[in-house]
Formats: sequence, C-alpha cells, structure tokens
Amino acid sequence: YNMCKGWVQPEHPKMDPDIPDLPSGPLDLYRKKASFNWKEMLYFIDGKDILEYKEKVFKVLENDPLYARQPGEDIPIEKMRELTFLRVKQLFCYDLLRKEEVMSNPWKGVVLNDCLGMYDWAVATKFFLNKGMFGSTIASSGSKRHNKFVESTDDMTTFGCFALTELSHGSNTRAMRTTATYDPSTQEFVIHSPDFEAAKFWVGNLGKNATHAVVFAQLYTPDQVCHGLHSFVVPVRDPKTLLALPGVVVGDMGKKLGQNGLDNGFVLFHNVRIPRENLLNRTGDVTPDGHYVTPFKDPNKRFGASLGALSGGRVSITRIALVNLKLALVITIRFSATRRQFGPKDMEEIPVLEYQLQQCRLIPYLATAYAFENFSKSFFMNFVEFQMGQVMKDKSDRQAELGREIHALSCSSKPMGSWAAQRGIQECREACGGHGYLAMNRLGDLRNDNDPNCTYEGDNNVLLQQTSSYLLSWLHIKLRDGVRIESPLHTVDFLDDFHQILQSKFTATTLEECMDPAVPLAAYKWLVCFLLQESRNRLEQQRAKTNDEFEARNNSQYYYCRSLAIAYIEHTCLQRFHEWTSAEDTPAGLRPVLKKLFALYGLWSLNNHMATLYQGNYLSGRKPAEMVQIAIVTLCAELKDDAVALVDVFAPPDFILNSPIGNADGQLYKNLWSTVMQGKDVLQRPSWWKEFCSDKPMVGSLRPKL
Amino acid sequence: YNMCKGWVQPEHPKMDPDIPDLPSGPLDLYRKKASFNWKEMLYFIDGKDILEYKEKVFKVLENDPLYARQPGEDIPIEKMRELTFLRVKQLFCYDLLRKEEVMSNPWKGVVLNDCLGMYDWAVATKFFLNKGMFGSTIASSGSKRHNKFVESTDDMTTFGCFALTELSHGSNTRAMRTTATYDPSTQEFVIHSPDFEAAKFWVGNLGKNATHAVVFAQLYTPDQVCHGLHSFVVPVRDPKTLLALPGVVVGDMGKKLGQNGLDNGFVLFHNVRIPRENLLNRTGDVTPDGHYVTPFKDPNKRFGASLGALSGGRVSITRIALVNLKLALVITIRFSATRRQFGPKDMEEIPVLEYQLQQCRLIPYLATAYAFENFSKSFFMNFVEFQMGQVMKDKSDRQAELGREIHALSCSSKPMGSWAAQRGIQECREACGGHGYLAMNRLGDLRNDNDPNCTYEGDNNVLLQQTSSYLLSWLHIKLRDGVRIESPLHTVDFLDDFHQILQSKFTATTLEECMDPAVPLAAYKWLVCFLLQESRNRLEQQRAKTNDEFEARNNSQYYYCRSLAIAYIEHTCLQRFHEWTSAEDTPAGLRPVLKKLFALYGLWSLNNHMATLYQGNYLSGRKPAEMVQIAIVTLCAELKDDAVALVDVFAPPDFILNSPIGNADGQLYKNLWSTVMQGKDVLQRPSWWKEFCSDKPMVGSLRPKL
Repeated sequence: YNMCKGWVQPEHPKMDPDIPDLPSGPLDLYRKKASFNWKEMLYFIDGKDILEYKEKVFKVLENDPLYARQPGEDIPIEKMRELTFLRVKQLFCYDLLRKEEVMSNPWKGVVLNDCLGMYDWAVATKFFLNKGMFGSTIASSGSKRHNKFVESTDDMTTFGCFALTELSHGSNTRAMRTTATYDPSTQEFVIHSPDFEAAKFWVGNLGKNATHAVVFAQLYTPDQVCHGLHSFVVPVRDPKTLLALPGVVVGDMGKKLGQNGLDNGFVLFHNVRIPRENLLNRTGDVTPDGHYVTPFKDPNKRFGASLGALSGGRVSITRIALVNLKLALVITIRFSATRRQFGPKDMEEIPVLEYQLQQCRLIPYLATAYAFENFSKSFFMNFVEFQMGQVMKDKSDRQAELGREIHALSCSSKPMGSWAAQRGIQECREACGGHGYLAMNRLGDLRNDNDPNCTYEGDNNVLLQQTSSYLLSWLHIKLRDGVRIESPLHTVDFLDDFHQILQSKFTATTLEECMDPAVPLAAYKWLVCFLLQESRNRLEQQRAKTNDEFEARNNSQYYYCRSLAIAYIEHTCLQRFHEWTSAEDTPAGLRPVLKKLFALYGLWSLNNHMATLYQGNYLSGRKPAEMVQIAIVTLCAELKDDAVALVDVFAPPDFILNSPIGNADGQLYKNLWSTVMQGKDVLQRPSWWKEFCSDKPMVGSLRPKL
Repeated sequence: YNMCKGWVQPEHPKMDPDIPDLPSGPLDLYRKKASFNWKEMLYFIDGKDILEYKEKVFKVLENDPLYARQPGEDIPIEKMRELTFLRVKQLFCYDLLRKEEVMSNPWKGVVLNDCLGMYDWAVATKFFLNKGMFGSTIASSGSKRHNKFVESTDDMTTFGCFALTELSHGSNTRAMRTTATYDPSTQEFVIHSPDFEAAKFWVGNLGKNATHAVVFAQLYTPDQVCHGLHSFVVPVRDPKTLLALPGVVVGDMGKKLGQNGLDNGFVLFHNVRIPRENLLNRTGDVTPDGHYVTPFKDPNKRFGASLGALSGGRVSITRIALVNLKLALVITIRFSATRRQFGPKDMEEIPVLEYQLQQCRLIPYLATAYAFENFSKSFFMNFVEFQMGQVMKDKSDRQAELGREIHALSCSSKPMGSWAAQRGIQECREACGGHGYLAMNRLGDLRNDNDPNCTYEGDNNVLLQQTSSYLLSWLHIKLRDGVRIESPLHTVDFLDDFHQILQSKFTATTLEECMDPAVPLAAYKWLVCFLLQESRNRLEQQRAKTNDEFEARNNSQYYYCRSLAIAYIEHTCLQRFHEWTSAEDTPAGLRPVLKKLFALYGLWSLNNHMATLYQGNYLSGRKPAEMVQIAIVTLCAELKDDAVALVDVFAPPDFILNSPIGNADGQLYKNLWSTVMQGKDVLQRPSWWKEFCSDKPMVGSLRPKL
C-alpha cells in the first residue's frame, strides 16, 4: 500500500506555479468567489508528474490534425471506424507510455486511458482492447510460448480482440457453446460454432480490424470429455489482406447506441483448425497425444482462475464512468454559471446556478465525483497490490482473501460508478435544457458512451449479487463458527460489531451536528448491518419455504441483497473519502471545501435510504429527515460559489472537452453560435428543394378506403 | 364529459372477433398462461372504430416503399431530413384524417399522432407542427384575415413553423428580445433581432423547410411604447425556391440527440418588413395610424391569453411519452420472455422474466403504462371540454377555473409522463443487456426521441412550480377566507378535508389489506396534504427570514414544492385508474388483472415516498414498509405470466415496432441474426484495409519529449 502511494498520491511540498490561468470572462464572477485555490486542488490530486504527463498527452492530440474535429459533426459509421483506426495507429507512433513507464508507475496507464477517453472513448477502448485486454489475457492465461502473439500486436503486425460472449449467452459465461476439440492426428484444436446462436458477439475490434482473437470455448479431448471453458488464440483475418480466413465468418454488428468509432463484431467458426500450442494453458493443457492435464483439482477453481483476468475490467470501468461524470459536470456547471434566466426583478436575470433546484440537481453529483475520484484511485492501488501478489505467485491466505474482497468491491463499484454517471449525465442533459439536446454540446455522446458501462464486464444487477453473497458469507461464518470478521482492506471489519451497531440510533439534533462526518458514517454502518440482517432473514425464510436454493436466492434479490450490496460500496467509498479529507497531508486550504463535499455526498447518498433508516427505527420522528434535507440544500447553497472552481480542477482543455457551452472562457452564446454557423451546409437550402417547390402533393389522392 | 366519452371509451357490447392472432412461437409459453384475453383488453381500450383506424394507418405505412427501412441503419442527417420530408409529403396524399373527422372525434387526432410516432416521432412532429401547431396558433391568436395562411399549408403551398424561444431565452418567455416595430408610413411591422443572442432557436421545421413562421416579438408602437410579446406571421423563405428572403438569415441547428429527421432551425431578422395585418390580433391590435388597442386591461392577462395556445402541447406530450414507454416495454418484455440465462440446473436455462430482479425492474413500468393509458385519455377529454368552452366563448367562472386546473395538471402530467418514460426506457435498455445497446433494437432511439419531452413546452422542473403554486393558492384562500376547496375536475376537492386527512394513519396489517385499492389512495391523500403543509411552512419561514418573495420561493423548491406537485399528479392518476378498474362497464374478465396493475402502480409509486410517510408519522415501525415491499414483489410475480399478453395489447405490427428482439413471433435470435446479416457491408473488409496491412506505424517515431 505504502509502496503504491507514491504513484497516485504525490508528495507536494509546494504548489506548482506552472499551471496556466484560465481565460478571463463571464465565469470570473464565480471563480473569484471560490473559497479555495483550484490550482492547489489540481496539484494536490494529480501532482507534478501526472500534471505534466496529462498536458503532454493533451498537446499531442490537439496539435495533430488527425485528431481535429468539429463539435456535433455527423460522420457515417464506416468513416468513424476508419478515423478511430487511424487515430489509434497514430498512437503507436506517439508511444505515449512505454512498458517500463507503466511498470514503474501503473497509475500512468489509468491516466493515459482517462486522457484518451476524455477525447473519445472509442479511441481509448480500441487502443486498450488490443494493447491491454488481448495482451494481458494472454499474459495471465497463457505461458511463454504465447509471447509472440502479444509482441506482434506491439507494432501492429497483428491486431487483437477478446471473444467471450455469444449471441445467446452473456452473463452466464459457463454456458458458452463454442467448442474446441483436440485432434491428436494433426495436433490441432478444431474450433467450431454449433450454430449461429453460438456466434461470438459484441467483440470489440472484431468488426473490421482484428486479425487474432482470444476465443473462449469448451475444451473437448478425443475421449469426448468436456473439460469446460478455456481460451485459445485463434487467427481470424489474414494480416496481409484483412480478409477472413477460411472457415471464419467474421463481420460487423452495425450501429450501436454509442462508441461507434469502435468496431464491435461477431464471428462464427466452421471447424477452424489451430495449433495445439494456441491453447492458453495456465489453468490446463492438453498433451500432444490428447490427455488433459491441469494443476487444479477442482474444475470450479479452474474456471474462476481462467476468468480472473476479467476482474481488472471492472476496476477500470469504475474510473471510466467517473471520467464521463466529470466531463458532464464541467459542461453543465459552466453552462449554469453563465446561462441567465429570470431574476428578482424583471430586467435583471441571474445565473441559473443561483436557483436551489439547479444546485440540488447538480452539486450532489459534483460531491459524488470528488468522492469517486479518491475511491477510484485508492481502489486501483488495492488492485495493483493484488496483481503484484499474483505475479509473485503469492499463495497466502491473505492474497486469496484480498482477491475475494476485491471481487466484492469491483462487483459493486462498477454498478455504483456507472449508474451514478448514467443518472448524473442525464440530469446534466436536462439541466442544460434545449442546448443540452444539441449534439455539439456532447452530453448525448457522454450518455451514450457511458451507457455500456452498466452492461459489459457483467450486468450491474447480476454483479451486485456477487457482493451480497460475499457479505452474507461473512455473517454466516461468524454466526456459525464465531469467526472474527476482518478483511485485508478492512471494508467489512465493522460487521464484527454487527449486534452492537444494530442497537445504535441517529443522534444528531442540530444542523451542525448533522453535518459532522460521524453522522453519515455511523448511519451507513447501521444500514449495512440492517440490510445484511434483513437479507439473511429473507433468504432463510425463502429457503424454509421453497426448499430450493436457486429459488430462495431469486426471491431475495430486489429489496434485500441488491440494496445491501449498494449500501456496502457506498459506505466504503464514504469511509475512504473521510480518510482522504482528514489525512495529514491534505492541505489546510482545501480541507474546508473537501469536508463540505464529504458531508454532501454522505447525506445525499444516505437520503436515498431514508425509508430503510426509518423502517429499522434508526431514525424516528419528523426532525431527522428534515435536518438531513435542510443540510443538503444548505451545503448545495454553500458550495455553489465553489462549483466552477471545483469543475475547473477536472476540466481538460477546450479542445478535448469539445463542447461549446462548456468552454473555459464561459462565452456560452458566442461559442455556441459560432459552432452552429460552422456546421455543414447550415445556411443552404436543402438538396431536395424541388420536391417541395415544384412537385406538390395532391391532397387525398391516395386516401385509403376502409 | 359525457359527450366526449363516446370518443375514447367506446361502447363494447361484444368483443370484435376480427383481431388477428399473433404468430405462434416461443412466446406461446407465456401467452397461454395469461389470466385474461388480450383481444378483449385491446377491444376494451380502443373499441372497433379506433382499432380499424389504427389498422388502416399502419397498413398505409407498411405498404408504401417510401416508409421502408432497415432496423439500425446509419443514415446521414441530410438524408434523414429528406426522407422525413418526403414521408410527410406523402401523408398529404393519404389525407388520413380529414378536418370533419377530427371535429366529430378529436381522439382520432391523438391516435393518428400515436401511430405516426410509433413509426418515427420526427415524421409525426414535422407533420403536426405544420398542420397543428402553426395552424392552431393562428386560429387561436389571429382572426379571419389570417385564414389564408392556414389554408396555404393545407395543400403544402407553404409550410409553417412556430418560433418562440431564442438562443439566450427559453423558460423565461417574457424576456424574448426580438422586436416588431410599427411603421405607420408604410403600415408595416419591422421585425428585428437586436443581436445573435436573440436569434429564434430550436424552431421545428425551420432548419430546411418552413416558408412561414409564427414569430413572437415585443410589439412597439411609433411612440416607442412596448406592448409586450405578440405573435406575427413572418415569411422566411420563398415558397418557389426555398431560398431565404431578404433580411432573413435562416438555417439548420445541426445534429440533435434524437429526432434527427426533424429539421430544427434558427432565424435572425434584419429589419424585415411585414404587412400590419400579419399581427395575430386576438389579444391586441395596432390601428393603421399606429395606436395599440386591446380588449384586455391587464397586460398579464393578455400575456397569459397569448400563451394559452401552448397548453395543448403538454397534454399531447403526456401521451407521446407514454407511447415511447409502451414501445420500450413491448420490446423488453418479449425479449425477457424469450432470452434464457442460467437456471436451477446447469443444463436447463429459464427465461430472464422468471427472475425477481427482472420482474421488479420491468413490471412496475408496465403497470405505470396502464395507469397512464387511462390518464392520458381522460385528461385529453378534459382538455377538449375546455377547448370547446373557449370556442364557445364561455366566460363563466367554471371555465376559468377549469383552465387553471388543466394548467396545473398539464404542468405536472408532462413531467410525470416524460420522466417515467425516460427512466423506464433506460431500465429497458439495461434489462436487454448488450442487445439493448444495438441500435437496431431501437431502445436507443426511443430514449433519444423521448428525451426532449423533459424539456420542451417547459422544463419539467420549472413547470412543477406552476402546479405547486396552484395547490398552495387553494390552501391559502381556504385558510384566509374559509373558501371551500372544489375544482371542476375535482382533483383538489379532498384538500378541503386537509386537517382530518393529516390525522389519518396507515392501517393495513396484512398483505391482503395492503393490496386493497383504499390503501395507496388514502396514503397519497395524506401525502399531498402533508407536503402541502410542509411547503407552506417552508415558504412562510423563508418569507419571514428573507423578506423577499423571489428568494423565499427559490429556497422552497427542492424538497417541498417539487415533491408536492409530483405527489398531486400521481394521486390524480391513481384515483382515475381506480375509477377505471372499478367502473361498471369494465369487463369482468379484465378486472382482476387491472386491479393487480392498479395495486402495483399505487404501491410502487408510493414506495418512492416512503421516507416522507415515515417522517410525517403516517407509517411507523418495520411492518408497513416491509408489507409494501412484499406486496410489490408478490404482484410482480403474479403479473409476470400476464406480462406478454399485456404488451401484446400495446404492440403495433412488427414493421412499425422495428426491433428484431421485439417481434411478435418471439424468434429472438433468428430475427436479430438476420437483421445483423442484412447490414451494409457487414462481411466486407474495411475500405481502409491497406492502412492496416501496408502502412505500418513506426513505434515511437513521433514520441514527444517533455
């Protein structure tokens, strides 16, 4: 932990004076009112090294005409895919992050992804699916003999993709139906799709581009025994022509709701033969004569290990969703600070950010973004620690427990992050009114590009069950065996006081007390314990009633296990936010605003669970809910003068943000109007004008009879 | 009311046997389990006349190759606008609804809009903005001398649009800055935009097509007195060439998040002269020599009357949002009934609709759709009654009160409907997993096309203030003058028992009692009264504190007035749903399922207010919330076997639905796969293949130095 700390939480003896000022303009009004120095906050969050790195990446993109674009332009899908490919190819030339650099500071990999994603997620994803997903799956699931596949993607000799889900199977990964049957006579595997429902589907990079795929298939030995899902490197297109190889039907899935620069595809295999060595053999191998050998005794463990390579995806998505939320907030807060509408007097209009409604719609999401900023970083550190243990072949109990805990955290942090971004961006879209509905202002793209975060790497609702099961299993062994509840990252330690916590009550009696950090933290601890107890009771009742584990679990999800998992991850995030705001090295000048953001995030999140708090009698009477609500509107009102500075910290350069209403100069209408006027054929009459002017309809000439 | 009733709630002595069966297939499983006859429900909701009319409209579209399309196809915006224009033009030839027909049954106008919107909202909107909005504004704001403008749009000699909002003003309509200055020397008005911020903006049909606009501008007489906002018919393009007229800068706003077939535009006027007669003079006129004359004394009343033409829009949007929600539910429920994933045994997978989570995510929205189906109809009847009063120049107090009540209802029903659709469609998108993210399945378009319903005709959050003010004013005059609270549509009558209702408590003690219609109705009555009291208290406190009405109102919105307006409209909708399910002419075979839908809608909506119910001590202890939650999951489980039949009632033909995963035959994968394979260039290598194959990047050749 301490070793990682240097990467992401830099030492900062003095603030860097090199951060340039933002352009003066209508936003000065709020910038001058800010209670803290936004440059100090930026420096505190990123540190010198990362700040410089981000600047470098942004400059590369801005200075290269290949990355030029016009906000809101209408580009055909084929062209978007081409542009994305060319931009990714150019990234190979820029080589913005060498392997040694990631090794010495893994956080830089995340920062590069952030920067590329702020520009366009399709570019970031296409780049990382080849560089990261394809490569890292081979690294974690294969052995030395597979290095050549990774190396050939490094210089784009080949291009890789990851093919797991099928047309008829997504969440139920074990049920994949593609087969890989070993033929000892040629020492080959025969990859086969039994029918089109087993087509690999949704594979990023596969639509137009990939030459090689990591394909998950059921492994059959010549004795017709199925050894379960394994992964294989399968060539799909000829790298010299990009034509499909014999027996391979590979194609593009067509238009998606977003990220259309990324070519998602499908593939069907008709008895495609690959060398025996293409099996990624970390968890099981087949001998040349066709015997299956594995270091694992338990096929369930083997399956878990082969899917272990996936867990990083959710950690990454937690961060990606946050980046989307931040971009939407930059656009919307700046818009709200410069858009004026109505006012106390007829002739004097005030910024819409002055309205309580606008504040309460937006500022809680700003607090959420700061909470997630800290959480996504610290969680990434935990994940790196876990990965290093894997690389070091750490077989300790702690390492195993850390794996379980990280699984439980990632299965809930991805839902928490992606949903917060989904809802926050939608709120931003609406809060910008009609202008939020113009494509050029980017809120639509942010919403559309964020949306799959709720779905891939596991459907949010399905994932939450993993987290609730983890928590229930802790309570189960405590009650059964009296085991002390304690985990490597300490996110469940408080559950050991389960019974005592359930006796606690809400005690704040004034607004000031209500804003004390102890209040939401204590309430969340009670909430997790209460929901854990209720989930367990519900499950036990259902088990007794149905005598069927599957049905008992099914019937306990909606109001119990699901809420439990959400409350747990919110508590974890809140707890870490508290540690961050009160840490020794947090500059004194930033603490007051961070503490307000903490209080707002805590109370606002808690407010969604108010019914449960009353139901379990943690609260009673009119006062507590009223106090929490007044605290929320009060905090929003106090933070509104800091809101512009708080988003300035997150904001990339205008070129990257690519939203005229969100430009740093705050010249809302000038920027919007000039972008409209730069549109294609904006003032031209339509090409079909004669269809209107000459060829008039004969009204009723085609009127149907009944 | 009774007069209108025949239009929308038909007499139905016997079920019509002519409704064709749906194709047999995987959905039979659920269709056979349904507790009611879907054809009986369809006939009960629509009646013979409307059913036949819908069939006629759908057939016209399906049989005309101009309306042919491929799910998920990628069409450039310019082409989408052309296609939409041609399709609208063809509607003139079909003349599907003559004026006499609308006069004799106004509901048919709504049904036509439903049908066109189910096909594509851009077509419906473009058609109705010209036919309805332009025409009806002139009819309601102008006089006989303006008939020619409406007549010339009837045969497409001209094409109309409605220009109110400006670049820098939307919600604050009074603050529009376009001017219309009368010049007696030529008897003309000079229409002028002082600067680009006063450009009319977001005007549907104006981007490419409109020849005439109804323009709202501040009217100045030669004495330089401003008489406030008035509307004028202003020619903007030459109908013979579609070129902009001198002094007019008119253009296309570019890409929007959705509805890209509709050409939204902007216009700037540089001293454009129009005849004096083009002033729509219902509320005020200027004499040839330049004197302003008006039948209204109070300029506020005049303003209200000139904007009165807008109130129909919100009634219409309430319905439009419902149509979107219904389409999303048809797609998603059919998908959920045929998509199988996991199961009690490894080899036997069950439809995802069998999972409690999937049920609880979707079926409450299905109940909502049935509630809104009834509400949107009955509310339309109310609106027609009001309009007829206006046409008859009814100057009674009742007519005035009816106007206020309908305003309060439409200002909350539009938010309720558009948000329910927004959230419901998003839930549907996620519930269909990855397949929901494919454009061809249409959930993205539904979300994107529905989204502006939250914004236009008044931002939802801003509108809700109108409703809460209406309710507060009732309480105010009751407390001050002892006036009895009673309104023409009786939506507020229960408030007269304000004090008694606030004394009431939740009384259900069993699950059965909890599902009784009286339970949610009573709870909602208490809720509205409680929030009304709290809103009033909050306002009074703030008034005392700030001594500033503007600030007092601003500080009372988020947790008080806003929730009040929402609770009021939900109660109204629930109350009407109850009347519908228990009405004498509701067939006995349908009542059980309708009663379940009622209970689910009521309890699920109420569940969002659970914290307030506890806070005000209407509920106490663990039991009530638990019972409500168990009732919700129980009702969802009971309704899941009816879910497919319930969406069959709503479903248009497959051609209109245009979503392969939602086809009536339930052949999920066959339909999806064949649509993918029909995509453009689906199996071709990319046009840019040489960029990959030959011109390899030199890794690091462009690496930037720090």
